[in-house]
Amino acid sequence: MTIDIVEAIPYRIPMRKPLHFASGEVHHIEHVLLRITTADGIVGIADVPPRPYTYGETTASVIEVLTGLFQDALIGTDALDRSLIHARLARTVGNPTAKGAVDIALWDILGKSLGLPVHRLLGGYTQQLPVSHMLGFDSAPALIDEARLFIEQYGIRTFKVKVGRRPLALDIQLTRALREALGPDVELYLDANRGWTASEAIHVLDATSDLGLTYFEEPDDAREVLGRRRLVQLSRIPIVADESAPSLGDAAREIHTGGASALSIKTARTGFTESQKILSFAEAMGIDVIMGNQIDSQLGSIATVTFGAAFEYSSRRAAELSNFLDMADDLMADPIHIENGFVAAPTVPGVGIAIDDHKLASYRIDKE
Amino acid sequence: MTIDIVEAIPYRIPMRKPLHFASGEVHHIEHVLLRITTADGIVGIADVPPRPYTYGETTASVIEVLTGLFQDALIGTDALDRSLIHARLARTVGNPTAKGAVDIALWDILGKSLGLPVHRLLGGYTQQLPVSHMLGFDSAPALIDEARLFIEQYGIRTFKVKVGRRPLALDIQLTRALREALGPDVELYLDANRGWTASEAIHVLDATSDLGLTYFEEPDDAREVLGRRRLVQLSRIPIVADESAPSLGDAAREIHTGGASALSIKTARTGFTESQKILSFAEAMGIDVIMGNQIDSQLGSIATVTFGAAFEYSSRRAAELSNFLDMADDLMADPIHIENGFVAAPTVPGVGIAIDDHKLASYRIDKE
Repeated sequence: MTIDIVEAIPYRIPMRKPLHFASGEVHHIEHVLLRITTADGIVGIADVPPRPYTYGETTASVIEVLTGLFQDALIGTDALDRSLIHARLARTVGNPTAKGAVDIALWDILGKSLGLPVHRLLGGYTQQLPVSHMLGFDSAPALIDEARLFIEQYGIRTFKVKVGRRPLALDIQLTRALREALGPDVELYLDANRGWTASEAIHVLDATSDLGLTYFEEPDDAREVLGRRRLVQLSRIPIVADESAPSLGDAAREIHTGGASALSIKTARTGFTESQKILSFAEAMGIDVIMGNQIDSQLGSIATVTFGAAFEYSSRRAAELSNFLDMADDLMADPIHIENGFVAAPTVPGVGIAIDDHKLASYRIDKE
Repeated sequence: MTIDIVEAIPYRIPMRKPLHFASGEVHHIEHVLLRITTADGIVGIADVPPRPYTYGETTASVIEVLTGLFQDALIGTDALDRSLIHARLARTVGNPTAKGAVDIALWDILGKSLGLPVHRLLGGYTQQLPVSHMLGFDSAPALIDEARLFIEQYGIRTFKVKVGRRPLALDIQLTRALREALGPDVELYLDANRGWTASEAIHVLDATSDLGLTYFEEPDDAREVLGRRRLVQLSRIPIVADESAPSLGDAAREIHTGGASALSIKTARTGFTESQKILSFAEAMGIDVIMGNQIDSQLGSIATVTFGAAFEYSSRRAAELSNFLDMADDLMADPIHIENGFVAAPTVPGVGIAIDDHKLASYRIDKE
């Protein structure tokens, strides 16, 4: 299964409604579709979401590295030689979502060549993942309406509330209003995208301690080292590292030194291979894992399901899979359905990403 | 690939020469061959080495659990549903080598059904592993002769010296004699099988500090908690946990709390799936890993190669693969060759274990 062609196709899809949160806004998604084709015609597919404010990658940088250095490392190599390819890619610093996509595309080739869902190759623990939906910045009544709609329409029972605004009372009151409106049986957790200081975050924890929140993701900037550690020590709920633990090494450092007490795993940035390492590390250390969302398209979301549903330890909690609902369209030929709060793991060979060629032709921005 | 038949066949093979070390002696190996057959006739094979003094398992207990509780968990299940099967097996406490063998046999079925070496399925990093040979208790001249023979005959350049005797001078002088006779370019490390106290081990470390030893495995009993931690803190070479870290949870506890600074991974007790988790944990924490030997037959040794050569992190150091040389015979249809100090990773579909049926008929002890 020698790799023959590496393609990186930028495409742009508008958001149904813009996303607002403490670290930025998103009006449309501009992603890069990676296609790796072997000499015998098997096509591995993955989606790359460039996030300059999180990883420093741009559409142009992703295309450049995929069709430059990474293409050189890939072409002529057997797609099965994942470890060798990883060692080659590792020589280039950074570029996490470009690297993650290469790994997912290689797994896709493996699964397709064997006629097996990658979900089963990885372990096949459960056939579906429960969905957590993200509530972006808005008024309490608007978010209560949104949550109720998602409960009714999709059966979703877990919501991640984007916080991190000042005055703190804004988000404290919002969270309280959500709990009161949605009742005790809905799971709620917070994500401040490092919008607060450690002291502010501790204040919010105290002010919401009666609301049964389950996690608090990136309350403050993890680079403010001692503040973060004080926060982790004082918090009765796990403090989740997301952008502060984007790799295995970062995850180990943050968990080992008390900078976080749970991890968000995003296949968009660590593919399946490194995500599996992070998952094993988390299991070894006995800390919770949330399957996160890199504002993923359906392409990225189904990759998350393929991975997350494969293992017991990654399928314990609701996975963040619904960001694609905010996008006006998608490239997926077979759209994702959220039913009774779950997304089913793909049963087709490979990762489960099939492209609608007409949509790709219409949304790609390299041939206008 | 529904599992149809589970067989556990005890067999006995004499040792060419008995092994002596601090925790015991071995005169013959009495192992259990596990065969799992699917409805479509694919046979997954693995070897179970019952080690009562290490894990409490006996030939009888292994057969009983494999053809009892584990058979109930396996028959009628798809061999691909590894995660589900692991969850079922986990309900039975202990029995590590029986569980490890089930996992390896499932991987064997997966590889054979796909026509792929499991070594490549797992990542396929390198095509061969360097071999470390174990030197059991004997006089210095005898062990020097043995080492020279192995250097000349097999190209082996790494030796694990079994120590742990009293007076300490015995092993200190032995190690010094080996270094002087073999020169500076041969790698030497120690394994005391917890034969000493922490204080004695520190004394040995000091007395051998000029000999360029690379590791010290289980110098003392890890259950003597503070002594072990003092030893780890004072040692300039990694202290390797083997029998004190037989599972992912034990490995995490020992490394995280300073009870060891390196890990021995044995596929015989953690199969491939849990071994991969331990390996990821070790990589996350940045600690060395040695692929260890459970006094494995060739069946077990080739499984170690399949796993160890698949990943960059497990192929950095010489793997303990040569114990089978002390056995008078083996069940392997295609014997392992050690050439230029290396064992090649299997290139046939599956784990690489093929059974010589005539030998099995002659060594099995259930039909006499």
